[in-house]
Amino acid sequence: MISKNQLKLIRALGQKKQRKLQQQFLVQGEKNVLELLNSDLTIEQLFITEQFAEQHTQVLAGKDFTIADEEALAKASTLVSNNAAIAIVNMPAQPQAPKKGLVLALDGVSDPGNLGTIIRVADWFGITHIIASNHCADQFNPKTISATMGSFCRVNVIQVDLATYLAQTSLPVYGAYLGGESVHQCAFNQDMVLVMGSESHGISEQIGEFINHKITIPAFGGAESLNVAMASGIILDNIKRTQAR
Amino acid sequence: MISKNQLKLIRALGQKKQRKLQQQFLVQGEKNVLELLNSDLTIEQLFITEQFAEQHTQVLAGKDFTIADEEALAKASTLVSNNAAIAIVNMPAQPQAPKKGLVLALDGVSDPGNLGTIIRVADWFGITHIIASNHCADQFNPKTISATMGSFCRVNVIQVDLATYLAQTSLPVYGAYLGGESVHQCAFNQDMVLVMGSESHGISEQIGEFINHKITIPAFGGAESLNVAMASGIILDNIKRTQAR
Repeated sequence: MISKNQLKLIRALGQKKQRKLQQQFLVQGEKNVLELLNSDLTIEQLFITEQFAEQHTQVLAGKDFTIADEEALAKASTLVSNNAAIAIVNMPAQPQAPKKGLVLALDGVSDPGNLGTIIRVADWFGITHIIASNHCADQFNPKTISATMGSFCRVNVIQVDLATYLAQTSLPVYGAYLGGESVHQCAFNQDMVLVMGSESHGISEQIGEFINHKITIPAFGGAESLNVAMASGIILDNIKRTQAR
Repeated sequence: MISKNQLKLIRALGQKKQRKLQQQFLVQGEKNVLELLNSDLTIEQLFITEQFAEQHTQVLAGKDFTIADEEALAKASTLVSNNAAIAIVNMPAQPQAPKKGLVLALDGVSDPGNLGTIIRVADWFGITHIIASNHCADQFNPKTISATMGSFCRVNVIQVDLATYLAQTSLPVYGAYLGGESVHQCAFNQDMVLVMGSESHGISEQIGEFINHKITIPAFGGAESLNVAMASGIILDNIKRTQAR
């Protein structure tokens, strides 16, 4: 059973203001909750169906949870389709911004789904740190968490003033533009920052000041642009390909 | 003004059955309608705001249209956010399946948004023909059209029995799997078919029989999989990179 007060808290955590206030966020759906259970994150409350409990006894061993029926979970969920599990999770402490390695920096990626998809593809390519400007979508937005497909457990998103971060970094800074050097030809450093711009305006003028290398994905057809998550994935693949040599 | 009958038709075209019956589909939103106006597709009816008409006089020259206010357009639209333009478009004749070039084949990609995103990235890489199995989402679904960002005008999606198509093709057939040859190392043919599988099950057993080359995107981190649209984009980039040499 989900009590009235618990339901109220779940609903509240659909809002950024309340997440900040409570220092908690929601993880919903089977895949994301399973990844959560296998992570080091601290679960404050967990609501699951009997079926979920039966199917995942091993990962649930020693964990507190409340059984709820599908209907109650679907009703409580802030997402359209979720009927297996909802967790209320404590926000981890924000780690230090990294000083080396491959760092992905986002300049105003404002759609939560795009941010989540970027976290997922960053995880595929082994990136553990994403620097997000203050204009980015909230990493704890339920839509972001949902789109990560569990990768929120492995990728740290560090919200910072991006200009300040770039001003102090000694790493070379690559930025995705429509007219830069082809990523097929680029030689990428092992330690570097890749900046991706916003959905509608690309990299802002202020952040553009810090870009040392403008890069681009070669186009062969008529599409004017690529979605920022798609572009991030393609560029990261090119970086990893050249670094792995 | 949008009349009651016109509104009824627009609503009806939100459904696949009605689209098939009428042989018409909807194009909605500023970007997609602008691309439509620049294409060879036949517009049956066009509803636009006064502002859209004023901003795009050149492309509208000689075209019939009806002025409607934002509110009426938003109300008529089958999409959540659209307040600039709605077009009712005649379905073009389905072209022949291509016998050479780079052909993208989809085996059961069922999410309309994913299909639209794949059409967009295919257009970026200059692919003009996509073969879609009968289990794929409808290319004329409003969500598909919306996600293409205008690329539906340049990419032909040909719905076929995929097994029959692959049985008769003389092209080498590459298929995306989780454990295949790295796309960073593959030598791709100029003329080839790339098969991408469904969101939940990948390439089906039946279609797997026709795959000559199993390929994969090298993983460096913890994510279990990539979204099919993302994977399509990354693989197409690798194909174009090696073909362009």
